[in-house]
Amino acid sequence: MRLLIVGSVAIDSVETPFGKAEKALGGSATYASVAASYFTSTGIVAVVGCDFDRRHINLLKRKRIDLEGLQIDSSGKTFFWSGYYEGDMNVAHTRMTDLNVFESFNPVIPKSYRDTPFILLENIHPALQLDVLSQVENPRLVMCDTMNYWIKSEPELLEKVFRKVDVICINEDEARLFCNTPSLPAAASQLLKLGPNYIIIKKGIHGVVLFGKKSFFALPSIPLLKVKDPTGAGDTFAGGTIGYIAKSNRLNEDLLRRALVAGTVMASYCVEDFSCRRTARLKPEEISDRAKQLREYSRIPAFRM
Amino acid sequence: MRLLIVGSVAIDSVETPFGKAEKALGGSATYASVAASYFTSTGIVAVVGCDFDRRHINLLKRKRIDLEGLQIDSSGKTFFWSGYYEGDMNVAHTRMTDLNVFESFNPVIPKSYRDTPFILLENIHPALQLDVLSQVENPRLVMCDTMNYWIKSEPELLEKVFRKVDVICINEDEARLFCNTPSLPAAASQLLKLGPNYIIIKKGIHGVVLFGKKSFFALPSIPLLKVKDPTGAGDTFAGGTIGYIAKSNRLNEDLLRRALVAGTVMASYCVEDFSCRRTARLKPEEISDRAKQLREYSRIPAFRM
Repeated sequence: MRLLIVGSVAIDSVETPFGKAEKALGGSATYASVAASYFTSTGIVAVVGCDFDRRHINLLKRKRIDLEGLQIDSSGKTFFWSGYYEGDMNVAHTRMTDLNVFESFNPVIPKSYRDTPFILLENIHPALQLDVLSQVENPRLVMCDTMNYWIKSEPELLEKVFRKVDVICINEDEARLFCNTPSLPAAASQLLKLGPNYIIIKKGIHGVVLFGKKSFFALPSIPLLKVKDPTGAGDTFAGGTIGYIAKSNRLNEDLLRRALVAGTVMASYCVEDFSCRRTARLKPEEISDRAKQLREYSRIPAFRM
Repeated sequence: MRLLIVGSVAIDSVETPFGKAEKALGGSATYASVAASYFTSTGIVAVVGCDFDRRHINLLKRKRIDLEGLQIDSSGKTFFWSGYYEGDMNVAHTRMTDLNVFESFNPVIPKSYRDTPFILLENIHPALQLDVLSQVENPRLVMCDTMNYWIKSEPELLEKVFRKVDVICINEDEARLFCNTPSLPAAASQLLKLGPNYIIIKKGIHGVVLFGKKSFFALPSIPLLKVKDPTGAGDTFAGGTIGYIAKSNRLNEDLLRRALVAGTVMASYCVEDFSCRRTARLKPEEISDRAKQLREYSRIPAFRM
């Protein structure tokens, strides 16, 4: 197995101006692993409850996602989130969050996962992210995500996580909040000083930017006339990105740029339908066609004064 | 003369977290013409009052900007704006606006300007933009800008302007407001249906996007650790872009992409200092160096699944 993803598997009920989905498969580890599965062998560590539908297990299995690390906690129900989006769908409005078995989630890394070379730490308590890192053996690359909640409540622990990872992948508002500056280049520069080699900043419809110690790369999002549900786009992006990185043995910036293209393409498919309905049934050509499109969208002809 | 710019010449007092400038040269036609002057022969039609400082005239003359169309209205003072920026400097807060002689501005196009092939209609009353178009003879390309104020107060007149131009160049919020949709692709598609061949949407630090009838191009902004004053960045961008277009005889999308690079580079220099201090004293190498940088920032290596 090349890639280990630790995060949540959840049941979501989502409503947008374009429809709704009741009790659909959700969670950061779900979105990320489905996206990564197109590029590399992937396993997840997460927890679900006694109510978790067999159909969801079957979907993950069909994507050849290793489920040895998926704990089934029969003492309770699966993490449930219900919410809705309005207008430009930039903000998720929460109707209800029931952490259920996710509240006491203790990520135990199976023995067979411990030497996985690539690791994606999705948004969970930073103490658990550190705990995961203490259980694995010399990974080649670790990428982490987080959320506003941990930045506000556990900034010191989160800084410890940031100091131990190779790539931080967060939203622009989270970067600004953690670094207490309105400027993204200033925030990225602060984060790089903690140790990571790369900072990926997710900007929704404005695409992503990659800050390296001495480099910068900007990638637009794919313009879509039809966005049905933005839930999971960020996790799908992260999963697609590290999945693409994990399939290669040579880590360099060109690989990273291609990986961000893969992540962006996967995210663009994610928002075209609810849950991971669209990303779970993609053909490889659909991915490479949109990657080509994206390359043409960003193409700058040689400049002459 | 290849390019005619119609807009405002103003006196600005601006304060930002990084300093302030009192009674500095400002106005949309000023910023745009200084940027365009690096690429093509440019003239402006605008109005100033009896108080307009000789030093400002000299600066514009040094940039070889044709001032035959600059009216001096001795009955009043020059358009004055005073404002400040805070935090991420995304929003200009107005302290005072004195329209002065700009209130009764009547753009008279000098005879020698009437066959100018390229025209930039900066943000003025749409009735005046239409009046300018009735005075010129078969221009090859007309680009227009506007602002929220006219979108709200004169939407029908503004639509008439949009129906007569080749390129609309506006902010993302203005596009959303005029088209009454949160989606930029949807807004661009509506605007293209009015007749223009291209819609340029300015997104500040997120760069610009270009929508054509069958094409799309996205260009990031240059990441800057030091932004001193964002005033005039959008006008500088528009001036640099159409200035670059005007120097060429072949209009195609690759030219437009290069032109957007020129505009983006000029805007990145604009914000490094107050007024047009930085853009007025650039060397051509400084422009082409940053254009090369931008090309590397956007470079996507060929994608392989």
